[in-house]
Amino acid sequence: MKQSIFLLAFVFAAAWTARADDVYQAERSRWLRLAEESKPELIHSSHHPVRVVKAVEDKGAYQGWRFETDKEMTPERLATTNFRQLRRVTLDFGDHLTGYLSLSLRSLESMMDAPTRLKLFLGEVPAEMNTPLDPWADNRLARSWMQDEVVTLTLSDKAYRLDRRVSGRYLTVELMGSSSTYDFALDSITFVSETSAKPIADDGLLPTCPPIIRDIDRVGKATLRECMQTVYEDGPKRDRRLWTGDMYLESLANRYSFQNHRLTKRCLYLFAGLAREDGILHGNIFEYPTPKPQIINYMVSYNLLYVMSLLEYWRDTKDRETVLDLWPVALRQVEDALRYVRPDGIFDQSRGSSWNFFDWRPGIDVAVCIQALTIDALRGITELGQELGRSEDVKAYPARAKLMTAAARKQMMDKKSGLFMSGPDRQVSVLSQAWMIRAGVLNRKEARRALTAVLEMPESLKPGTPYATHYLIEAMLLAGMTDEAREYLTDYWGGMVQRGADTFFEAYDPTNDNLSPYNFSPVNSYCHAWSCTPIYFIHKYPEVFQR
Amino acid sequence: MKQSIFLLAFVFAAAWTARADDVYQAERSRWLRLAEESKPELIHSSHHPVRVVKAVEDKGAYQGWRFETDKEMTPERLATTNFRQLRRVTLDFGDHLTGYLSLSLRSLESMMDAPTRLKLFLGEVPAEMNTPLDPWADNRLARSWMQDEVVTLTLSDKAYRLDRRVSGRYLTVELMGSSSTYDFALDSITFVSETSAKPIADDGLLPTCPPIIRDIDRVGKATLRECMQTVYEDGPKRDRRLWTGDMYLESLANRYSFQNHRLTKRCLYLFAGLAREDGILHGNIFEYPTPKPQIINYMVSYNLLYVMSLLEYWRDTKDRETVLDLWPVALRQVEDALRYVRPDGIFDQSRGSSWNFFDWRPGIDVAVCIQALTIDALRGITELGQELGRSEDVKAYPARAKLMTAAARKQMMDKKSGLFMSGPDRQVSVLSQAWMIRAGVLNRKEARRALTAVLEMPESLKPGTPYATHYLIEAMLLAGMTDEAREYLTDYWGGMVQRGADTFFEAYDPTNDNLSPYNFSPVNSYCHAWSCTPIYFIHKYPEVFQR
Repeated sequence: MKQSIFLLAFVFAAAWTARADDVYQAERSRWLRLAEESKPELIHSSHHPVRVVKAVEDKGAYQGWRFETDKEMTPERLATTNFRQLRRVTLDFGDHLTGYLSLSLRSLESMMDAPTRLKLFLGEVPAEMNTPLDPWADNRLARSWMQDEVVTLTLSDKAYRLDRRVSGRYLTVELMGSSSTYDFALDSITFVSETSAKPIADDGLLPTCPPIIRDIDRVGKATLRECMQTVYEDGPKRDRRLWTGDMYLESLANRYSFQNHRLTKRCLYLFAGLAREDGILHGNIFEYPTPKPQIINYMVSYNLLYVMSLLEYWRDTKDRETVLDLWPVALRQVEDALRYVRPDGIFDQSRGSSWNFFDWRPGIDVAVCIQALTIDALRGITELGQELGRSEDVKAYPARAKLMTAAARKQMMDKKSGLFMSGPDRQVSVLSQAWMIRAGVLNRKEARRALTAVLEMPESLKPGTPYATHYLIEAMLLAGMTDEAREYLTDYWGGMVQRGADTFFEAYDPTNDNLSPYNFSPVNSYCHAWSCTPIYFIHKYPEVFQR
Repeated sequence: MKQSIFLLAFVFAAAWTARADDVYQAERSRWLRLAEESKPELIHSSHHPVRVVKAVEDKGAYQGWRFETDKEMTPERLATTNFRQLRRVTLDFGDHLTGYLSLSLRSLESMMDAPTRLKLFLGEVPAEMNTPLDPWADNRLARSWMQDEVVTLTLSDKAYRLDRRVSGRYLTVELMGSSSTYDFALDSITFVSETSAKPIADDGLLPTCPPIIRDIDRVGKATLRECMQTVYEDGPKRDRRLWTGDMYLESLANRYSFQNHRLTKRCLYLFAGLAREDGILHGNIFEYPTPKPQIINYMVSYNLLYVMSLLEYWRDTKDRETVLDLWPVALRQVEDALRYVRPDGIFDQSRGSSWNFFDWRPGIDVAVCIQALTIDALRGITELGQELGRSEDVKAYPARAKLMTAAARKQMMDKKSGLFMSGPDRQVSVLSQAWMIRAGVLNRKEARRALTAVLEMPESLKPGTPYATHYLIEAMLLAGMTDEAREYLTDYWGGMVQRGADTFFEAYDPTNDNLSPYNFSPVNSYCHAWSCTPIYFIHKYPEVFQR
């Protein structure tokens, strides 16, 4: 069986150029089946609140709110306290958790003679739980992302389990309605967490590793653990789907932590199995009820990161069977990207309708970024093809990369400053330089000069998300700016740690606590896959970060 | 084993006068175990909406509202209609159901890319679903009795089951929040009903039975079916507990319908197993988490109806083992009631703190009623004792009944009018006459005269509930007023049928649609056990009701 799949993949790859869509159709079913076979078992564990907290408004705290330990109440005492009188409590599970919440009402003397209605509100950060949510201001994201639920319990002492999977650290319980004579306590408050990440016995850090780096590594691993479910989710509280860009960074961090490469394999097969009829991938995928793509997201930038993910999977596993099986998918994405490249070697976004995402920073121009990523992907797929013995398939790519590199330097780089400028307005952004450095378009010296300059320019566009910041750190390391990389990573992700992060945030700007891509920070994801990448840097470059 | 229990019961009954509470303690555990062994299996069946309805405000309709069939929408069409645009629908399951509701969201083209929040509101009657509930006016009953729930569904096409057991016929679904791009249909709306009443193949009615009586019988059986769960519940939507008074009437109706005598046995054992240490029963019981009484309800009137229930159970089953086992319990209740009886033969309510419930009619005085019920119970337990061969235990009771009968006639009856007058204000109520007739204190002629007079008096207090009306119908039949009984039953319960009742109401007054014991009619129970008794009359007296 394995042999025949192996052969089929060869035949298929060879036949790609003159591919028949009906052949591809058959492959998609098989790929989806392989994705299903690689679906990980989830690991469950039970958690109970570790303390009762009170919300304190505090300008010095992240987003203006913090929780402090309630000196008069403990989880143990709560279990014997009449909640009809207490009416409201906020509990801290001590860690960010993803899974299912349950509790029961324990009768104190009197009987439960009417249903009891409770509001349960689970959240990731203190401000989220203390900001009025209604009226809901922003229609872009659904109000129902917020994890506040009103539930009616009709039987006392029977465990009630909230049907909805939730994610967060803090739980507020509020009494909304009950019999005026029913005395009861909140009992057996339990959070059964889920993840496909197996616990790691050893943190893998050197004894010399500074405490702040240890903290960043710990929080990064917690972030990745929470996002590792039956796919690499982007955010377990909000969004809850598989995106190529997140998968790419998660798989890099996974290498240095949980090493669940089977999950990466599943995700690679899911994208392949859900490709369009012409073989082009979609940018994101939902698993339920059956895996399906969100067809509105056609993203060349993410499709090229699929290629890079396959390369990294090869590096991690040397799983030739899988990588050869998916080889035509990778080739197809590169071919599609090259459709956009003009004869003069410039990626022309106007040739199609791709959404080329690189950052949430408003106003960012990504012409330089997508040019660089295409060059990088050409280099990556060439390397992969050669290692797989498929040199014939990639033989044209080095010349294409060379042409695009020369075109980038000629048409996009400002000769005087050595900076890449993007789009008709010649926008100067940190990210443009970072991606060009990653693509090898600048040599080490040029890279150092460009990065140093762009970071110092007050008017340059800085990265707006941990996602974009990943590529900046990577560029610094490629440029040999190890001190700067360490300092930036420590400042940026360490800043989140200092602000109380249990997991790393989707969006973070040290100068603006309420930054939100959706104009309302409570709906931000505070545990977001693309922010977990310090794990990758800390362990890949121990000499930079751990000494 | 059976022999030894049998013997033990004898020994125990004989030792009652000098009873030791620790012996009784052991009996209680055994009785609870027997109650558990008699717990019926619930029968489940699946139901789907039969039509889509629209609410119409109509002064001619019961409580001012009715539902009419939506001509533009059907349940079939709903399953393919975009609910993001429809936003609100009311469905009719065609029958009153008790159990669990489930539904799923079926994606139409687009993906479910955010949680979907729905309000589900299940109700028994149209007005309940069209009356504003908030702000909740009455604190006596909990707001949470109302069956409106907001739920958040995070996975499309996955069946969502409302955790709470609900009861009713109509379901309104309203969209509270979702992605602005997610098109979906409501799918697989299912109500899995529960009851311990097995379906009856034959309605048992004569071919001559008039249509209105057939309807009353059908609605009565639906009422009883809904209330027959793992105990005789009083109301499956609101209250949901076992009361002695309801059990008594349900067991009478059960004889002529579902004949589930094992359920009666379970309830008799539950009350016995949960008695106070001194053997006195509580008026009502909850099953969850473990059976417990609501200790605030000490009710001599209901405890005497326990005695009458045991007598009726004996008549139904001749189950000597059970009845002898519970014999000391019955004796104990009669002994307790006699504590209230003065040497002159009058039941003096001031001798204890019993709540002697006979009707929700405000201002009703029950001195005559409890006097009559005690006489009746003395007669009943004497009959039962003689049949069981326990004549010795009851030998003093005929004389006590005779004394109380004479005292009632002397001190409570108005010589001139032949009417019983209750309490210091000498209140004239229909119920006082009815209970005295049931107790055999009036002969047939006197009974007829008293009932006719009291019903004609504009100022006399009329029954306020179907519960009280049961005893009036019974009294009419005892008085030989068969035409009047048929007419009254047809008018009263038939009036509910004509007002659209699927099941009979807890409270009903033909002249006041919004009558409520709780000052807010939506919280009334519209399927209430004590209203099912036309079944009993129709089948016990076919010559009166079916010709």
